[in-house]
This record gives sequence, structure tokens and C-alpha cells, in this order.
Amino acid sequence: MSIRVTIWHEYRHEKKNPKVAEVYPKGMHEAIASHFRKCKDMEVFTALLDDPDNGLSDEVLKKTDVLTWWGHGAHNEVSDLTVERVYKRVHEGMGLIVLHSGHHAKIFRKLMGTSCDLKWRADGEREILWITRPGHPITEGIADHIILEKEEMYGEFFDVPEPLETIFISSFEGGEVFRSGVTYQRGLGSIFYFRPGHETFPTYYNPQILRVLENAVRWAIPRMPSSPIKSNHTPAGWLNAELQKPVEEKK
Amino acid sequence: MSIRVTIWHEYRHEKKNPKVAEVYPKGMHEAIASHFRKCKDMEVFTALLDDPDNGLSDEVLKKTDVLTWWGHGAHNEVSDLTVERVYKRVHEGMGLIVLHSGHHAKIFRKLMGTSCDLKWRADGEREILWITRPGHPITEGIADHIILEKEEMYGEFFDVPEPLETIFISSFEGGEVFRSGVTYQRGLGSIFYFRPGHETFPTYYNPQILRVLENAVRWAIPRMPSSPIKSNHTPAGWLNAELQKPVEEKK
Amino acid sequence: MSIRVTIWHEYRHEKKNPKVAEVYPKGMHEAIASHFRKCKDMEVFTALLDDPDNGLSDEVLKKTDVLTWWGHGAHNEVSDLTVERVYKRVHEGMGLIVLHSGHHAKIFRKLMGTSCDLKWRADGEREILWITRPGHPITEGIADHIILEKEEMYGEFFDVPEPLETIFISSFEGGEVFRSGVTYQRGLGSIFYFRPGHETFPTYYNPQILRVLENAVRWAIPRMPSSPIKSNHTPAGWLNAELQKPVEEKK
Amino acid sequence: MSIRVTIWHEYRHEKKNPKVAEVYPKGMHEAIASHFRKCKDMEVFTALLDDPDNGLSDEVLKKTDVLTWWGHGAHNEVSDLTVERVYKRVHEGMGLIVLHSGHHAKIFRKLMGTSCDLKWRADGEREILWITRPGHPITEGIADHIILEKEEMYGEFFDVPEPLETIFISSFEGGEVFRSGVTYQRGLGSIFYFRPGHETFPTYYNPQILRVLENAVRWAIPRMPSSPIKSNHTPAGWLNAELQKPVEEKK
Repeated sequence: MSIRVTIWHEYRHEKKNPKVAEVYPKGMHEAIASHFRKCKDMEVFTALLDDPDNGLSDEVLKKTDVLTWWGHGAHNEVSDLTVERVYKRVHEGMGLIVLHSGHHAKIFRKLMGTSCDLKWRADGEREILWITRPGHPITEGIADHIILEKEEMYGEFFDVPEPLETIFISSFEGGEVFRSGVTYQRGLGSIFYFRPGHETFPTYYNPQILRVLENAVRWAIPRMPSSPIKSNHTPAGWLNAELQKPVEEKK
Repeated sequence: MSIRVTIWHEYRHEKKNPKVAEVYPKGMHEAIASHFRKCKDMEVFTALLDDPDNGLSDEVLKKTDVLTWWGHGAHNEVSDLTVERVYKRVHEGMGLIVLHSGHHAKIFRKLMGTSCDLKWRADGEREILWITRPGHPITEGIADHIILEKEEMYGEFFDVPEPLETIFISSFEGGEVFRSGVTYQRGLGSIFYFRPGHETFPTYYNPQILRVLENAVRWAIPRMPSSPIKSNHTPAGWLNAELQKPVEEKK
Repeated sequence: MSIRVTIWHEYRHEKKNPKVAEVYPKGMHEAIASHFRKCKDMEVFTALLDDPDNGLSDEVLKKTDVLTWWGHGAHNEVSDLTVERVYKRVHEGMGLIVLHSGHHAKIFRKLMGTSCDLKWRADGEREILWITRPGHPITEGIADHIILEKEEMYGEFFDVPEPLETIFISSFEGGEVFRSGVTYQRGLGSIFYFRPGHETFPTYYNPQILRVLENAVRWAIPRMPSSPIKSNHTPAGWLNAELQKPVEEKK
Repeated sequence: MSIRVTIWHEYRHEKKNPKVAEVYPKGMHEAIASHFRKCKDMEVFTALLDDPDNGLSDEVLKKTDVLTWWGHGAHNEVSDLTVERVYKRVHEGMGLIVLHSGHHAKIFRKLMGTSCDLKWRADGEREILWITRPGHPITEGIADHIILEKEEMYGEFFDVPEPLETIFISSFEGGEVFRSGVTYQRGLGSIFYFRPGHETFPTYYNPQILRVLENAVRWAIPRMPSSPIKSNHTPAGWLNAELQKPVEEKK
């Protein structure tokens, strides 16, 4: 069965800034989507901020195993209802991959419980992403580091909770560092934040960056039925009742 | 300099339920406060849901190093503005100790990014809290486990993020387990969730429970000036500028 | 390509204790192996303490993707050379699943850096394993908890480092709790410790326990080429050299 | 009561290399010790590789609350018996602060269960240590980052287990990054690894570096009596026996 990936994109910068349109003539989402379409185990969808329901209706989300998220200038135009729907689906097990300036997306801040603030400078500096977790599914096929010749700088302190796993750490020409690949779990859902991808640089054509994204999608798939374990009142005697069930009824 | 502790309490059950009033005639907050008042390094305040600003104005919070939180039936009566004020102060470094049914408090859910749901049964069962992190400041003076003869049961799955440290795990007569003492960090703030403390049982008179609370207060104190590190635009050249400062100006 | 699983077993209790032989007439390793043999994605091998090189020569280990380990009475008869070989392979990326009394195996203690001590009582008590990480690959297909009607008790404090993830927590009839499913990473290797499996009880015939083992094997597979990233002296100028390489040589 | 700090030092480079002797005429240990002697809450001792028992007899260790460790060229001359004694004391609760090239000390590798390998280059580069955990006791008084104008480079992958907390991350002029401040817990003991301190640079005179060391000592103190919780056979009936004890005997 295929992994159903939905690539969510703000899709505004391409329309306003000719420099961005030049780098991503069909939009950043299509750069990522066209790579994923080559993966035989993936079924690829795109969803845009200006679509009805911000492109993320309950129907779309129900059919999404893993959602990628790129936003920047229009975080506040994502409706609170959309944020609630995505939040609920992540807790039910949908994977979420937050890209670059998505660190300030409402949904990421809500899931983290922090401001997700950071230092930044968009001067087009050399970034090196160093692997700090070789052997992790997300770094499969990446040897030791990734060099991006021009990227925006993001610097620590990155105001997120201590990550479950810190997978990449970047250095920038200007001397800053950043935890560029970090994992979290919320409810049944797996979350991966991946730093690179400023809109004026061709980062999402880099084969190593695409490989990391591809790995992350496979890592983030839902692992349980989509009905979360309900918390509830558990009457005394549940254990005896369960022990006395005939064997065939036991799970 | 004293640690300024504010004990926040919903203070409703004592007024409605004679059984609770019997156990805590002055309110649960006073049971905790009267213990803390014996600690020479603490200055103790109480704040109640029905006070103006829910007892937690900016002025009160500014003077609070560590806040303890007990709520149950009236989580929704805590105003969103209060939640925002507390959230901001935790990020600035104020410690937060969330007690028992406070797991469902708006402020805890907002900081966790999860539902904080759990299984429960209020039949008055024996609970044993086992230390899973001996040597931690919060378990100082507790030998191996704490037995509470009657408590409400809370059972896993406790829908919180993977804790930074799991310090206590409880077992209950009915067969359930629960991660009863867990730590988190959000912004500059340290957070400790501690399970015991149902309103109908005399848990907050138990000397071991009070010792854990006392330890937790000392562990959770702010460690940095209250102005958080601001994230911002960092112009190229900051490093050279800093390197060229005369020595006496360098931090 | 199949996952090559090697099931290592001490295989002594079955020969000395008729009660164990009755439960596991072909040995505990065969109970596990016969389940794995039904998994189409696995190629299954067994290796025993009394085989030459303790069954774990360099050749065997080189061909092993995931190793499971059950030992109890004869930990000291595993040679230090064997321990070194397994240690090296885990760091190269081989998965390791340590079962029950394997907590005291030389290899596990060496990888943990702790005593791995615990409390115990082999009276045949009811154990309930509660899931504390729904949505994790290792809990796939397990609804909420697993009940074992008779098992040995293991109790906290379990002297291991704070786990990366705590996946199962057990309660026992006698009131103890135990972190029964915990993950670690060492070098490129993934490690899962799984508590149940005392030799006198039919635990390794339980379909849910077998499902967890099966899941754990798939989770623990090596993710990178078996040559670990070497740490070394990195001469100045490496970056310029790398940046000047023609594109086709990069990566 | 004072914190008893023992500063362990290899003390060989100062004797062989005039450049080191010039920077640290009394030895690196004295640079650190003379700062700690100004802390009113510390009682300071030094211990050297060439002292009897490598300076770390049972008597010395028993009286040590926190041990700092600097070694480089002579790791193999530390006797295995010394390593065992230190290992045992860390598990009993003694704090351990491992400095710079101490990453390859036998005791650190034994506690980590990994090779602790890394990339390196001793060309005297600018290092910036960025705080990734503001609000932590170890970063108290450090505003945002520390700049060292000349230091040895250490680069990722640093082969250690995923840290409990990543407190500092360094960038180097050459483009590398390194997790320079990381915490672990083993048994009852707290461990802090802190990267800076190559013998040819005056790092241990830097007031910010000394502040971090001072903070780390206070953070790492033992929190429980020095007798570790023994794991053992726990007979059925312990709970009833404990419940029936008269109150005054209960802990």
C-alpha cells in the first residue's frame, strides 16, 4: 500500500517575488512533489493555502499519511480551524514534516508549546548540515554531511523543547549553529523539523536534501489504526473481566 | 535570597463537598503552604481561581519564582488571559509544578502540545510511587518508593510528550501504571508534573509527598535573568564587531 | 532483501530443568525462531552459547542484521572476545534486542555503562505491560496493553540510563512496576530491551509478545552501510577542496 | 557544608611541551583549582596521574562530591583498577565533569558504552559555543554564547549516546560543529562533558569557561546518601509487611 503524502504550501512568494518564481517556476511544492512522484511507494498530493479550507479539509487529512508544511509570510492566514484539524490528525498518527520557515507556523508552535523563535539572516551563506545520528532512518544514504552553497542562516537559541533526537546540526559561514533536523512525538504522530529551504535558493533540487525528505516521509508514517487510544474512566473489575474472557475473544 | 513560591488553587471542592472540607478544612493550598512556610529558604504566597485576575496578575507572576498548580472541576473558568500570562512567565524562567488533576489544566496542555488525557478511577486504591531516577534533586531524601494507602487511580496511556526525565512511576491496586513524576523544559522554564493529590484523600499531609514538592520547588527555580534571549535578525559582521570590542566591554 | 535475524540463546536451562524443557522442548530460541520463520521478510538463524565462538564468529555477525539475546545463568561463560565482536557490530549498525534476564549480559552492561540491576521475584505473578508510546513502530498492532498470567517479577529501580523512549511499563501483582520496553542507540546500532520471558513460563508463545518481537526486529535493522563514519584528523582546507570538486564527484 | 571538588589531571604536557608550560606554568589543574578556591561553597583538591593510585584511592574518592577529569596523551596509563573505583563512585552519586580530550578517557568510554570518537584539528581556530539550553543551572550567568579566539577543533559525528540535554553547541572557523556541553546520568551520578580546553590555549583562564565549570560542579553534586539502592530478591508479602508497620517506623 502506498504512503499518501500531502505537500502543503503557502505558495505566495513565487507569485510576488520574481526571484523566487525564477528558482521555483511551478512553486516550491512542485519541486518536492516531482521528486516524491518518482518514489514508487508514494502517492503524492499537493494542497495550498488559498485552496478551500486551506487545502486541508477533514477529507484530505483523513487520506493523508504524512503532511509536509512550508509557510513563511502568511502564517496568520491559516485559519484556526485548519490548525485544529491538522493538530487532531497528528495526534491520531499522521506524520508531520515541518520545513524551514514553517518553524513559525501556528501548527508547529501549538504542537511544541514554545515560541519556536530563532536568529536569522538571509544573506545567502554556505551551510553545512552535519549528521549527529548516523544509523537513523532519516539519515539513510547520507554519508556524513550536506553542503548547501547558499542558504538563509538560522541560529540558536532555537526555542523548542529538547528534541527526542537531534539528527542534523548546521554551521553557517557567519559562525552560527542550528539544530537543523530534530524529531518529536505528539500523541500517535511523528514530527520532523528540517531547517533548509529558503525560497530564493534552489535547495529543494539538491539530491541529498530530497533524499532526507524522502527518508523522513517513510519514517513518519502512521503505525497504528487511526483511532487513538481513548482515555477514560476504567471501572474496578476490568482486569478480572478481561482475564475471564474466552481465549478467542482476547486480542 | 528566598525562593518566592506561589501556590495556585482552584479552591472549589472544599466549598461544595463536605468530605473534602473535612480533609482540608483550610483548603488544599493551605496544607501545602503550611509545609512550605517551614522551609527557611521559601517565601510563600497563595492565589485562588476566584481572586481578581484568577490571582495571577502580572505583578504576582513577576514576583513568583515557582508556581504550583492544582485544578480539577473548573479548568475552563481560568481565563485565557491568565493562561497567556502564566505561559509567558514559564518561558521567562518561572518554574511550574503541576499537581494531580492539573494535568487537564489549559496551561499544562498548552505547554505540552498534547491532550494530557489518561485513564482514571476514584475508588481509593493503594498507590506505590517507585523512584526511577535516584540521585535526582527531586528524589532527594526519598529512599526507594512512597506508599499511599488511598488515592485516585491514573493509568497509562498518559498523552504527554516523552518526558525529559521519568522520575516516579506508580502502580495501583487495580493493575494500572502511571508516569507519576515527569520533567519538561519549555523556554527558560522548568516544569514538573506530580501525580498524587486527589481532593478526598489526605495526600498533601504525607511527609514524603511534601518532601518531593519541596525538592521540586528548589529544582524549578529560575536560573537566568528574567529577560529571555531574544531571537532576531543578526546582521553579517556581528562576529567581527564583537571580536574587536575592547576587552572590558566583552561580557 | 530479507532481514537476517540471528537468535542467540544460552540454551542451558532447558537441559537442566525438566520444567523448562516441558515448556520449551526445542529450546526457547526455537519458539522465537519458528515465529520469525513465518515472516516473509526475515531469514532466521540461531546461535548458541556452546557453539564454537559462542555461535557468534565475525562471519556470523557480518551476516546478521538484527541479533536477539537471551541469557541467564551463564553470562560469565560468554567470552570477552565474543562480547567485543558483538559490541563492534552493534556500533556498525547491527540491531540488538535484549530479552528478559539478558539485562545482566556482559554485552548489555557494556553498552549501557551501568549495572543493569533490578529487583526480582520468580513466583509466577500476573504482569500487565502498558503501552506508553502508541504510534511507535514497536507497538504496531498492540492495542493498549498485554496481559501475561504468569511471569517473573522485575521491579524498579532498573539501573539503566534514561531511555531514549519508554515504550512499555509493566505492573505486577505484588505492586512493583518496571520499564519493560526501552530503546537506546549506540554508534549506528539500535537497541531494544524487552522484559518478558522467564524460562518456566510460555511467554514466547504469546501472540502479542511475538508481535512485539517481530516489530522490534523490523525497527532495529541497520540503516547505513556497515562502515561506520570514521573520526579522524581533518586538515584545514577540506571545505574548499570539497567545494571545488566537479559536481559529479560530490556526494 | 562545602562541595568537595577533586580536580584530576594527567599533568604530562606541561612537563614535555614548553608551549604548554608557558600557558599553564603550574599545570592546567591549578588554573581551574585557583578559580574554584575563590568559591566559598567549595573545598578543592587536586589529584594527578603520577600520584599513588593515580591520585584516586578509595579514600580520596569517598571524600569527593564532584570529580573533574582532564587527560590526553596518557589515557592508557590510568590503571583499570582506578577506572573501576571511579566508575563505582559515579554510580554511588559522585558527579563527574569530563573536559576536552577526556572524551577518550577509559572512564568516559566505559560510562558511555561508545567509542567517543570525533573529528579534530589543532590549528588554533575561533570557536563559538552557543547556548541551546538557556535557563539550565549549567548556563547560569552566560548570556547567549562564548567566543574563544583560539581553540582546537572537535567535529561531529561525536560518537556518544543521545545526550539527556544538549546545553552548548560549538561552531569552528573551518565549518565544523560539535555538541560541546552534554549531560548524562549513570546510576546515581550526574555527568557533564564540556569540550573546550586544549593544552596550548589559555582557555581555563577565560571567565565564562570558568563560570560554566563552577556551575557544573554545583549541578553535579550527589543528591542521595552514598549507599546506592540495592537491587535484590524481593519476597512476596513485602507490601503487607510494610503496610502493617507502626507509623513511626515507616520512612
